[in-house]
Amino acid sequence: MAKTEGLLFRQLFESESSTYTYLLADTNTKEAVIIDPVLETIDRDLKLIKELGLSLTVAVNTHCHADHITSTGLMKQRVAGLKSAISKFSGATADIHLTEGDMIPFGRHSLTVKETPGHTDGCITLVTEDQSMAFTGDALLIRGCGRTDFQQGCAEKLYHSVHEKIFTLPDECLIYPAHDYLGQTVSTVGEERKYNPRLTKSMEEFVEIMNNLNLPKPKKIDISVPANLVCGVHNF
Amino acid sequence: MAKTEGLLFRQLFESESSTYTYLLADTNTKEAVIIDPVLETIDRDLKLIKELGLSLTVAVNTHCHADHITSTGLMKQRVAGLKSAISKFSGATADIHLTEGDMIPFGRHSLTVKETPGHTDGCITLVTEDQSMAFTGDALLIRGCGRTDFQQGCAEKLYHSVHEKIFTLPDECLIYPAHDYLGQTVSTVGEERKYNPRLTKSMEEFVEIMNNLNLPKPKKIDISVPANLVCGVHNF
Repeated sequence: MAKTEGLLFRQLFESESSTYTYLLADTNTKEAVIIDPVLETIDRDLKLIKELGLSLTVAVNTHCHADHITSTGLMKQRVAGLKSAISKFSGATADIHLTEGDMIPFGRHSLTVKETPGHTDGCITLVTEDQSMAFTGDALLIRGCGRTDFQQGCAEKLYHSVHEKIFTLPDECLIYPAHDYLGQTVSTVGEERKYNPRLTKSMEEFVEIMNNLNLPKPKKIDISVPANLVCGVHNF
Repeated sequence: MAKTEGLLFRQLFESESSTYTYLLADTNTKEAVIIDPVLETIDRDLKLIKELGLSLTVAVNTHCHADHITSTGLMKQRVAGLKSAISKFSGATADIHLTEGDMIPFGRHSLTVKETPGHTDGCITLVTEDQSMAFTGDALLIRGCGRTDFQQGCAEKLYHSVHEKIFTLPDECLIYPAHDYLGQTVSTVGEERKYNPRLTKSMEEFVEIMNNLNLPKPKKIDISVPANLVCGVHNF
């Protein structure tokens, strides 16, 4: 479902890493983009793309994930002409290296890249052309945000990214994060500006909170990050 | 997100029973309806309702669930004026007993009741006024359907319900089921008419499939059904 006329939209969930994958397509031309696809759910995702009659042109990662392996590399092997995309500042290989203001077109629609570093240096937020939807990766989660204690994480940077690049979007803009652990599927800019327990704080308080989360190391970081630096497939 | 103008819509997930709860509200009047809320997630749901400034008027169950306990009874204790609703044919107590064609209004919007028995005798599908969204409970799942081997289950009845009451909706009508076990969040009537592996079959083949699923008894059936017959709260 999508507010935008002629936009096909699907939110998909991978339960082991609690990752959301998003599929967007032009209902006329059938050109499609997938955001943050996960290795474990590649068959489900490609089956749906086939059933919907879509032509997948770009598979984009919002950042180099530490908690799961991306399926973009394997998807490239299985979908002719598919291009992978990720931030230039991710350090990862990809067909397209994205920077601020870049557009990812699909039919009459497009996603615009906003650089939102802080969780990692190469984190991006993707915004639809009418600013009705923002795919925030791990920069902004529903009533939360990505951690900042590994992979170039920096709480100050994240605070600035969210306040300058995401909270400046319209209040009614829908927030679609890369993860949710409580069964929530969507939020809005207005809600997060008002109720996000971390990002409604001052920068000093935010940094204090983020530096004292004492989270365990992600279980899959040692295999995920090296794999995701090469689109999830070694020797590809 | 909702196609319908002035409709606030949220899909929420309860991971233990893989149940979807739906919250719909009029963005002007703030009157809201919740569909299939789960006992374990009542605090999350009521917090969100409060943050969104909504006035919850009706909590409706699509049927008497066997896999989880509804939170409608406890919600009634915590939300003044809230009314519970369920099919007349569910055998369950509630403030409102629904039958075919009944409307559940919330502000300028409404849900219309379609009786879709087969999983249980008291299964209903709720359809928005513009037929853009259908909440199908366990009658129709994404590429699947509810089982028919307990609680008055009847494969023939379910086949007729889906074909006559759901597949007759517009192809683009979004299907929001009560459950999904594969991370899928939504489908459409057109897709299910084309790709549902069970309901695209003849009735005879469908009955054969449904009678040979050999599924284990739901873990919580012995506590869920008696509790759900009284809105999830005994002695309420």
